Amino acid sequence: MFEAAEIGHKLSKEEFNARLTPLREQLITTQYQLRSAKFPVIILIAGVDRVGAHELITFMTGVFDSRYLQVSGFGPPTQEEAERPEYWRYWRALPPAGRMGVMLGAWTMAAVVDRLDRRIGKGEFAARMQHVRHFERSLCAEGALLLKFWLHLSPAEFKKQARRGGKHGLWKPIWMKASAVRAYQQRGMRVIEQALEQSSAEDVPWQLIESTDSHYRNLTVVETIQDEIRRRLDAPSPVPAGPSVNERATDAHTILDTVDLTQALEKEKYEKALDRAQARLNDLSAKAFRKGVSAVFVFEGWDAGGKGGCIRRVTAALDATVYRVVSIAAPTEEERAHHYLWRFWRHMPRDGHFLIFDRSWYGRVLVERVEGFATRSQWQRAYGEINEFESQISESRTALVKFWLHIDPDTQLARFKEREKTPFKQFKITEEDYRNREKWHDYEIAVNEMIARTSTRHAPWTIVPARDKYFARVHVLQTICKALEKKLS
Amino acid sequence: MFEAAEIGHKLSKEEFNARLTPLREQLITTQYQLRSAKFPVIILIAGVDRVGAHELITFMTGVFDSRYLQVSGFGPPTQEEAERPEYWRYWRALPPAGRMGVMLGAWTMAAVVDRLDRRIGKGEFAARMQHVRHFERSLCAEGALLLKFWLHLSPAEFKKQARRGGKHGLWKPIWMKASAVRAYQQRGMRVIEQALEQSSAEDVPWQLIESTDSHYRNLTVVETIQDEIRRRLDAPSPVPAGPSVNERATDAHTILDTVDLTQALEKEKYEKALDRAQARLNDLSAKAFRKGVSAVFVFEGWDAGGKGGCIRRVTAALDATVYRVVSIAAPTEEERAHHYLWRFWRHMPRDGHFLIFDRSWYGRVLVERVEGFATRSQWQRAYGEINEFESQISESRTALVKFWLHIDPDTQLARFKEREKTPFKQFKITEEDYRNREKWHDYEIAVNEMIARTSTRHAPWTIVPARDKYFARVHVLQTICKALEKKLS
Repeated sequence: MFEAAEIGHKLSKEEFNARLTPLREQLITTQYQLRSAKFPVIILIAGVDRVGAHELITFMTGVFDSRYLQVSGFGPPTQEEAERPEYWRYWRALPPAGRMGVMLGAWTMAAVVDRLDRRIGKGEFAARMQHVRHFERSLCAEGALLLKFWLHLSPAEFKKQARRGGKHGLWKPIWMKASAVRAYQQRGMRVIEQALEQSSAEDVPWQLIESTDSHYRNLTVVETIQDEIRRRLDAPSPVPAGPSVNERATDAHTILDTVDLTQALEKEKYEKALDRAQARLNDLSAKAFRKGVSAVFVFEGWDAGGKGGCIRRVTAALDATVYRVVSIAAPTEEERAHHYLWRFWRHMPRDGHFLIFDRSWYGRVLVERVEGFATRSQWQRAYGEINEFESQISESRTALVKFWLHIDPDTQLARFKEREKTPFKQFKITEEDYRNREKWHDYEIAVNEMIARTSTRHAPWTIVPARDKYFARVHVLQTICKALEKKLS
Repeated sequence: MFEAAEIGHKLSKEEFNARLTPLREQLITTQYQLRSAKFPVIILIAGVDRVGAHELITFMTGVFDSRYLQVSGFGPPTQEEAERPEYWRYWRALPPAGRMGVMLGAWTMAAVVDRLDRRIGKGEFAARMQHVRHFERSLCAEGALLLKFWLHLSPAEFKKQARRGGKHGLWKPIWMKASAVRAYQQRGMRVIEQALEQSSAEDVPWQLIESTDSHYRNLTVVETIQDEIRRRLDAPSPVPAGPSVNERATDAHTILDTVDLTQALEKEKYEKALDRAQARLNDLSAKAFRKGVSAVFVFEGWDAGGKGGCIRRVTAALDATVYRVVSIAAPTEEERAHHYLWRFWRHMPRDGHFLIFDRSWYGRVLVERVEGFATRSQWQRAYGEINEFESQISESRTALVKFWLHIDPDTQLARFKEREKTPFKQFKITEEDYRNREKWHDYEIAVNEMIARTSTRHAPWTIVPARDKYFARVHVLQTICKALEKKLS
């Protein structure tokens, strides 16, 4: 596959300048128009020509307005990065809509380097490539323009470069040791070929760039960027999203119907069981902290299902400095300018820390689906995106536990009425809550599909019968303890 | 000073419950009303009773709605924290307006522990206390409600606790080793007394809480919080800000008049000098990266003063993965909900990394002053706040270099006209630019005062004669090189 990038592409200085002058103007125009566009541009620069990559980025920061061009380099992970799922650092560096972000190295390159250095085997390499595809597809599906450039050098050129290695001051180019040169010639090409093949989803192919001649390389990359952004900006606005149709249940029966809501605990038993479970959780959390195991707890459920009460019983057992409760409401301006999963990634806990989501990314397939805030294709796509997201969490040293607090409509109504009577609970009840009740059936279908499609081996749902609050709380605590024990063993 | 907190305060369980029941309701009401308020509530919990602090916070997360109560604990700094100025981690953890943030340990406590462990001497301790005062005063001045609780134990109680030490699982209480108990009795009280005295600015005194009896401690703290938030919420809105008056110069002469704008460089000399300076900067940046020295460059100046061109010449000499250009425009929603310096703190570079501000916190005393976006008291206060901020940056391993690119009105007009003629520069020029020109004199006064009051020994201003772009760029590069060399030596 590399033949086309070893044919000696070259541009004379004259031709380079002649083509650059009109291009400059177009680049700035494009970049300024981009600022009001609703999508980000993510430019991946990778490849064996590390020195060339640096030259290219310096060139880019010269022809674009560098204030709107954010460059991120990915070396060995920092402590904070290493303590979170692998993609946390990439999510953190993603540009918002209207901006360009250049990422040097990043996800595919990291897997290649790990494979070449034999830190990972074939199987894990394949798994990493799958994460790459999922991630890139998810970015593109949300509208990002993703451009990937692989800077190629022929083995002979690579060897020449290796001799000059380290000349560019700051960074020793990757694999520029003699052993690295050999590795490149022997296994490198094969691994890279695999990587490029396996990480090319249909709409995000790698652009293989012959990197020997800097004029050719720089101009080709920048012209490609210009063309692609232009094309996207000039395209008629994306296909109008289809109507958000609620799936009609072919059968009125759902998973939720199978829940035995009569399960209950007497007050006395409850108090004892709660005490025991909290003590056990406290102990487990201390172990987890020492071992650097973290946890993410997701609380979803019907309004008035008792999420708040459960969360309070969980946090009461934890040291206040090692957990955080994140309550998911409407996204902020900054969050809206990013992929919808970005705002959840940004909260990911460090090793030994616990994160509790009061509502979560499942809003996409629940309220956003039912209320029509997300298009049909968006929420349909979300199941896969969420599974991928959660599998990344589970692969790291993180226990992931998800709860659906289940009640019936009558219980909900009774609790609403009760809240209205209790002065300090009045805040919790609005007209919207009553409006939502009318959509009970639509939600039921959405919940059912959510559980069916996102209850995976690594991140199963726990449906909690929550008509009896005592039973629900103890059940939640015990489930958390079991999950932690499993992760700790 | 501790006598009042050693008199054996106690609350019976009955009295505690009797007072708590009505309080609960008030707390939730208050917390919900707070959500639409324009100020954050910052609650500092410190003191020798680490176990009590944990109990207290657990109690608080139970009586408040924990979704709007964010708890941060401060242990030894993480790698990312240690690589930035000390207060970075506190700024990062500040709650936004409308929210409550509990901070456990934090700034005063950190200094006390450092002093007790003899990591710092008397002089540095005093300096740390001064930072505390500046920081707290600055938070309050921007509207934050800051409540500080010091949990006190008598020496006898402390000793008892020490024996139970570590019982609470996760955290060994601080200084609970036998040596620590001795230290507390011998030097601890003295150091703490100093700390409490010296870190009590007029409007943020420490509340000394006798911590022996948990009912007394918990209720007293929470009642105090309730009262203080209530008082702030019920207060008539803050004194209307005075008009933003531009200072009339008693003398038309300003620092800027003394700048010799005729300084220039011929093209040939410029190219050589630029090459040399860039090579030197590249070399220095590599050294800085290896040594973990970081840098912050601030570019301010008249519109069309040539900031962008200078920044491009600086970045061309740097590896694209170790610097970031942050362009300061209107704050985002999230930034607006915080203290105005928060958004600059959040960008602080890690060791070895460079941060370039295209416009900066000086907007407060320039455009915000002249346009009336900040009140007179806000921008007047800003000089001191900025000096404190910058002294913290300089105390860390960071070189701070500030430029004012100076031109005269005629040069500016000529450049505006030129921009209008160049297609890809048209974006850079708007009617507002012309409107701003009319306020040239007001800006001159503001710039003059800014330089006079914020050109400090540790962070001096460099006024760059920028009528000749060649001269300006070389001057900027050379100044940066000198500053880096100084920091590296």
